[in-house]
Amino acid sequence: MDLSLSCYACGATATLADGPRCDCGEPYWVRTEPSGFDWPATPERSLWRYRDLLPDVDPSGLAAGAGGTPLVRAPRLDDDVGATVHVKYEGANPTGTFKDRGSAVGVAAAAETGDDAVGTVSHGNMARSMAAHAASAGVDCLVLVPADVPTERLSLLARYDPTILRVDGDYGRLYRESLRIGSEAGVRFVNSDAPLRVAGQGTTALEIAESFAPDTPDAVVLPVSSGGHASGVWKAFRDLSTAGVLDRVPRLYFVQAAACAPIAEAWGRGDDVVEPVEAGETVAYSIANADPPSGNRVLAAASETEGGVLAVDDDAILEARRALASSAGLFVESACATALAGARRLGDRGDLVTDDDVVLVATGTGFTEREVDAPGVDAETVPLSALAETVTRVV
Amino acid sequence: MDLSLSCYACGATATLADGPRCDCGEPYWVRTEPSGFDWPATPERSLWRYRDLLPDVDPSGLAAGAGGTPLVRAPRLDDDVGATVHVKYEGANPTGTFKDRGSAVGVAAAAETGDDAVGTVSHGNMARSMAAHAASAGVDCLVLVPADVPTERLSLLARYDPTILRVDGDYGRLYRESLRIGSEAGVRFVNSDAPLRVAGQGTTALEIAESFAPDTPDAVVLPVSSGGHASGVWKAFRDLSTAGVLDRVPRLYFVQAAACAPIAEAWGRGDDVVEPVEAGETVAYSIANADPPSGNRVLAAASETEGGVLAVDDDAILEARRALASSAGLFVESACATALAGARRLGDRGDLVTDDDVVLVATGTGFTEREVDAPGVDAETVPLSALAETVTRVV
Ligand SMILES: [Zn+2]
Ligand SMILES: [Zn+2]
Repeated sequence: MDLSLSCYACGATATLADGPRCDCGEPYWVRTEPSGFDWPATPERSLWRYRDLLPDVDPSGLAAGAGGTPLVRAPRLDDDVGATVHVKYEGANPTGTFKDRGSAVGVAAAAETGDDAVGTVSHGNMARSMAAHAASAGVDCLVLVPADVPTERLSLLARYDPTILRVDGDYGRLYRESLRIGSEAGVRFVNSDAPLRVAGQGTTALEIAESFAPDTPDAVVLPVSSGGHASGVWKAFRDLSTAGVLDRVPRLYFVQAAACAPIAEAWGRGDDVVEPVEAGETVAYSIANADPPSGNRVLAAASETEGGVLAVDDDAILEARRALASSAGLFVESACATALAGARRLGDRGDLVTDDDVVLVATGTGFTEREVDAPGVDAETVPLSALAETVTRVV
Repeated sequence: MDLSLSCYACGATATLADGPRCDCGEPYWVRTEPSGFDWPATPERSLWRYRDLLPDVDPSGLAAGAGGTPLVRAPRLDDDVGATVHVKYEGANPTGTFKDRGSAVGVAAAAETGDDAVGTVSHGNMARSMAAHAASAGVDCLVLVPADVPTERLSLLARYDPTILRVDGDYGRLYRESLRIGSEAGVRFVNSDAPLRVAGQGTTALEIAESFAPDTPDAVVLPVSSGGHASGVWKAFRDLSTAGVLDRVPRLYFVQAAACAPIAEAWGRGDDVVEPVEAGETVAYSIANADPPSGNRVLAAASETEGGVLAVDDDAILEARRALASSAGLFVESACATALAGARRLGDRGDLVTDDDVVLVATGTGFTEREVDAPGVDAETVPLSALAETVTRVV
């Protein structure tokens, strides 16, 4: 399989064999042929519903279970945000996060081309997702983690039985060097901005758009870290617009945690290039990327769609996480509660208005993060004989 | 809304106002009109796709996110089971288990009829599911838990902000009395064998059947506890058979944990009535129901479909749970790993054969149960400078 790639920034074209980055410095994404695309008639529920806009690979096993996640209304958050709130719940993916979309496409491609192993530079959601898809496909999975990550943080990942290496050295450099090392050792790395991963991640947007068709939501709010998911979402909306099935592209808003917000800071300065920052501590640790490889592409997406990039602090994130559970029934990862925290800010400053349909992308389940901000439990004890009167009193 | 009900055992009919049980002692289920049903053409992915076979209620909020879960192949388990293995992954539901199907229907009905509150007798998956759906619908949720349940077991439930009462008294009696207490206090209890819940749970089977249409799987293997899910699955396959869209009903096999297996024991004795047992300790605690309210209905389902009921021990359950993660990429709750452990037994004894398509219903995610049987982590530390040679050695 040799994919055709293109650069969003300068328009250069390439193939997968040329590597993931253009000479201009920006990441490639997969070229698609959206002209003539229409919503599919198939009953297929997973992301493979959109094969016409995906790399030509055949899924098997777990790959066929990625995507197809629910979009639900959250009417009890409408007043809070000042708009009509919908939530795309990515926690429904097999490993509990949107990462499965990219892993499904990346691992299916690796399995089809006969690669012995896939790899990833992550110790969080992406690693778990890659390990699960590799386990299902019968392909080895190599996970490179920082030397100092606590062992208990790797326990959930180890369930899927990948090969884990702790790497002593600069993790940013490791990310950049992993592709070369992988290609020498026969390991296909599917990192956050790999074109195959970004192609899969774009299906979040395809599903959102189809849920609203023939209408279009006014805005989509997405947590942003490396910028891979954001890039895929932007590209998918562009493709649909090219295909003529959308009357317009929604405004795309991207949210970071204030303690590590290089893209939001660049946006605030009016720059179109992201500068690395020193990362601070945040409850949204899984989106704390201090040097995001697709950061410039996110700025372009926000600018072209007339959206924006913003940052929210930990108090706002935790409060948003509580509200998603207690008012929408969705218990999410702290990092993804940034979407609601960001939407509240957008409502406050008038970027979202009452008639707007806004989609919050809830990127992952909270079940993997039960210990964060655990609530106290308030439960009266009553004898069974007094239950009837107690129930009448409390409800 | 007054639903029409019927008794599977004696054929009596009733309405919801008559209560959930027939004079013959068996639970009612919702009457449906399957004649003329065909697979729907709608792109709807959730369980509301099958409105023609569901109570006539309108979902909103989280209810619209229940069901629509993936069915994935698990080729690496085929040899192990001795059949072609498919897994229906119910962990993709909004609160991580199949319970959301029944809660979605039950809470939507309550919201539509203007009930002030819904209730449940559970401190596990069902309670979490009811609390989430109630939170989304803006209906109060009353959860009755045993007086002695440890507070930390309630922490995840508390995220959804229900009213929790610890009840000091016999929990089995509480289950039976909750309906009366609820109806006096204006709380609609949607317990495990409530007809509305069972109607929602049946959609697991509708989705499985549609995934195979126009073929039919040979066997479905399902963990069983109260018997509500099992009843819904059986009824749905019967309805599809009546509608003429299935050429036959799959053999239904139900699996319990050996430490608490009243239905499997009755099946082994050749009885058609389940006797309560003393529950022992098991890792599959969430299916350890010593006095299952729909137990007799499960025996009827196994008998009529030429399936069976069996029990597996904790070692087999934990080993199956590890295999589902490391060979199929699905990390599940211990209770639901009984499905694979049971399928292995069925293969060993010749009840499943190589050409059989068998569906294991993986009823819930393992993320809510990370601490159970946590693996050791084996991870070598290497300097970045030696990474290339290490990678070449280990993959
Ligand atoms: Zn370029
Ligand atoms: Zn009867």
